[in-house]
Amino acid sequence: MLGLVVATDARWIDAALADPVALLIDHAHCEMKAASNAMSLAVRHGDRTTLVTAMIAIAEEELAHFRRVHELLVARGATLGNPPVDGYVAELRKAAQGPREAALVNSLLVGALIEARSCERFSLLAQAAPPPLGAMYGELLASEAGHYRTFVDLAVAEGAHDGVDEATVRARLRALAEREGEIVRRLASREARGSIHG
Amino acid sequence: MLGLVVATDARWIDAALADPVALLIDHAHCEMKAASNAMSLAVRHGDRTTLVTAMIAIAEEELAHFRRVHELLVARGATLGNPPVDGYVAELRKAAQGPREAALVNSLLVGALIEARSCERFSLLAQAAPPPLGAMYGELLASEAGHYRTFVDLAVAEGAHDGVDEATVRARLRALAEREGEIVRRLASREARGSIHG
Repeated sequence: MLGLVVATDARWIDAALADPVALLIDHAHCEMKAASNAMSLAVRHGDRTTLVTAMIAIAEEELAHFRRVHELLVARGATLGNPPVDGYVAELRKAAQGPREAALVNSLLVGALIEARSCERFSLLAQAAPPPLGAMYGELLASEAGHYRTFVDLAVAEGAHDGVDEATVRARLRALAEREGEIVRRLASREARGSIHG
Repeated sequence: MLGLVVATDARWIDAALADPVALLIDHAHCEMKAASNAMSLAVRHGDRTTLVTAMIAIAEEELAHFRRVHELLVARGATLGNPPVDGYVAELRKAAQGPREAALVNSLLVGALIEARSCERFSLLAQAAPPPLGAMYGELLASEAGHYRTFVDLAVAEGAHDGVDEATVRARLRALAEREGEIVRRLASREARGSIHG
């Protein structure tokens, strides 16, 4: 699905649904981190107008998702609390380090894979979670799939700008997807209920 | 105006309007920093539901403003570029350092004063800038004034939660406004065209 090479372990969905409040807390923090990451990319590459425009649109959508998930948390009498431990993004960023001229391409491909993994898990949740959670995840997954495509398209376009051709970008995406799969497998072997995006 | 004790120097508006693209670039970065700051406050105080809800609403508004200002920049053939040097916020944060139990109150009061200064300068721009900039600043200043009130109200409410009474919070706001005024005067003596929020 969306470039992923390793499917989420079947135990993940059971663990996630066993504690819906923990799921929503993790999800809210993931939306916030995604918004922050998009804003950071916009500020760090302010001369790339297409990128800035796309990143702000993504940040606005992620913040709107955050608000929605936070409202569900509050309705259940829970609070956002502190961010749960999340090794997935840190490990994926580390795995993506490469030459300087490919730094932006790599950041965008990391963004793409994070969105792809969220989309895959939202799809599992859309099928298995009781309402209203199931319906919400059904609505959100289309958005995450759109973000995946935006990140990949931008990686190709910005790669061309930096002298990295499309074939190289797509090969890099496949290689990173392999590493992402290894990270997801390793994290799942430690704890069944990993973060919603890994 | 809105708790400020020092009015912006009259030369500021001339310097700002002399280079509308530089004004918009600075403004866009200020909106982005305001959105990031609101999101950071939400994440750092995730157990305070009222605060989180208010900060996300502010972040969404600031991002929408950013998008609008960025569109004006792009229409003028300019790009966002790198953030301009901005000593105002750093100096104000430094001036606001205090005892640990008042850390959140101080952060919220710093947020209030930044919004107040933006609001004051938007008001100057609304009167002096040619359309469409003048009209835009007229629309945005109501939003900044609303953010000022939200930050002050939250400082009082969260102060009560942390054992800091309302009179102390309001005295702290007045003291910080004095420091903010000194910072604005000092920065203006160095460079007429300071940032839109200082």
